[in-house]
Amino acid sequence: MYKVLITTVPFASVDPSPLELLDHAGVEYQINPMGRKLKEAELVEMVTDYDILIAGTESISDGVMKAATKLKLISRVGVGLDGVDLLAAHKRNIKVSYTPEAPAPAVAELTIGLMLSLLRSIHVANSELHRGVWHRHFGRRISEATIGVIGAGRIGSKVINHLLQLGCRNILVNDIRSNLNLPKSVSVDLADKNEIYRRSDIITLHVPLTLGTKGMISGSELSMLRQGAMIINTSRGGIVDESALAAMLTNGHLSGAAMDVFEQEPYEGPLSKIENCILTSHMGSMSIDCRSNMEKEATQEAIRFITRQPLKGLVPIGEYEIQRRGL
Amino acid sequence: MYKVLITTVPFASVDPSPLELLDHAGVEYQINPMGRKLKEAELVEMVTDYDILIAGTESISDGVMKAATKLKLISRVGVGLDGVDLLAAHKRNIKVSYTPEAPAPAVAELTIGLMLSLLRSIHVANSELHRGVWHRHFGRRISEATIGVIGAGRIGSKVINHLLQLGCRNILVNDIRSNLNLPKSVSVDLADKNEIYRRSDIITLHVPLTLGTKGMISGSELSMLRQGAMIINTSRGGIVDESALAAMLTNGHLSGAAMDVFEQEPYEGPLSKIENCILTSHMGSMSIDCRSNMEKEATQEAIRFITRQPLKGLVPIGEYEIQRRGL
Repeated sequence: MYKVLITTVPFASVDPSPLELLDHAGVEYQINPMGRKLKEAELVEMVTDYDILIAGTESISDGVMKAATKLKLISRVGVGLDGVDLLAAHKRNIKVSYTPEAPAPAVAELTIGLMLSLLRSIHVANSELHRGVWHRHFGRRISEATIGVIGAGRIGSKVINHLLQLGCRNILVNDIRSNLNLPKSVSVDLADKNEIYRRSDIITLHVPLTLGTKGMISGSELSMLRQGAMIINTSRGGIVDESALAAMLTNGHLSGAAMDVFEQEPYEGPLSKIENCILTSHMGSMSIDCRSNMEKEATQEAIRFITRQPLKGLVPIGEYEIQRRGL
Repeated sequence: MYKVLITTVPFASVDPSPLELLDHAGVEYQINPMGRKLKEAELVEMVTDYDILIAGTESISDGVMKAATKLKLISRVGVGLDGVDLLAAHKRNIKVSYTPEAPAPAVAELTIGLMLSLLRSIHVANSELHRGVWHRHFGRRISEATIGVIGAGRIGSKVINHLLQLGCRNILVNDIRSNLNLPKSVSVDLADKNEIYRRSDIITLHVPLTLGTKGMISGSELSMLRQGAMIINTSRGGIVDESALAAMLTNGHLSGAAMDVFEQEPYEGPLSKIENCILTSHMGSMSIDCRSNMEKEATQEAIRFITRQPLKGLVPIGEYEIQRRGL
């Protein structure tokens, strides 16, 4: 009898169907009892007896896998693989699957919402009026702003499409891949990162967390941004240096930021003292429909494994290569 | 020599060109020295010596016009005419012009920004994280929500187009006009107001303030809304009963609201104690480009009047009819 540990939370809290799938398949499972992202040591303690993880963004290191002597499949709810040591999994003959498509529409839409808040100072006016201050903020429309998009994969390309629909006329795009399938529009231009830093009114990040992107936006990059520029991170914590960002917001070089992801989650830190920094709690994929699809897909993958059907969400070899080569 | 009083504030604060136009035309002008919306009694005091008002949303009543013995033109920066007693102006032979097209793109985009904040609880998560609370909120995408649009004029029709672009599949539209030019889409349906109240996840208002719309959304209408529904008002204060809205948010019948306009501005009231109510400070038209266009158009109209050129922004007869018939 296979045993499944569900580490990601919340799980099946709005749509119960993932648990119904497990019940129907007669699978024994346990949901993360901490109700929050597990620390590595906690996961080491917890994981020994399980064959399958339905996993979140917690660290699934070689140490965790060493403790998980029965582990055969990691089925990630979501797309990011920064938490999973793919090379260790390969070495230990543990398969890894994920749900790369499901979160994209929800993350892209949150990004547009954060951008409109930043452009119109919705968050600042809201804070002010909740403490009795009336100040009419000037803003800009998307059509008047230059938007830099770093990363044009599943999520970034949806963001670009939304921006075009909203009439954006200046979209600068950077991606490490050369074979991008960008919309054919006079409003979209490829650019190198330095050009994006120097020219954008708003920069939005849609890259995975890898050795190559960790700390990508540090103090020196932020200082290249235009006076009054803004930055959005709905991708992964650790890509933007949070202390440097706090300093650049405090000294007025940047006029705003929106952070959905953090190096340490739950986040506690200096950005929470800064009014023009919008903070959300890693909610990019948290639309009911997308979250539900992610949970169902990851659960169905676990059940396929248990019932010896072909897996559908196996992580492609390219992702192993990125970790092996430290890209 | 004509004298111009500019009552709307801010004026020419980002783009100085409206004042340059006046200077170039050799016109004597005064900007509202209070730096906020004038009260009627203040305007009565101030207005006696002026030939032209470049006006905001303050009340320009028969009493104001009676005191303004030299007044010949009211040139409104914006579209709403609720502040202007058109019948009194007609009686006193004072012309009234406005800038109906300029604000629409900015108001529509702010509305979409507020909608995305409401759908994803951006404002709530932001408040929580600024006080150290980490809670991952579930949300919905625009494609999963039923949006009710009341008023499909210049602004409402732009909101409908944005919603269609963002993949909204259920848009219910109400308008008093029968000859609407709505987008041909299976996602857009005409509906009466009661149907909109009963079926919408989010209702957004894009009607003028008239005798017919004043108090349109009171406690009885709000109680018809679905449990957990939300409402956005970027049109005019006085259309939504603020006390009733506060009560419905507090008792949990509604799950959120976004208010950009208020019966009394600057706003002070019970909504400022309610975290899931987004409050902004009448910023619908406050994008730099749209505000600048509004100010320039209203100023150019004043200069046309002074230089005896044909006026281009005269308020059409239909607006007088609405006030005459109390619609």
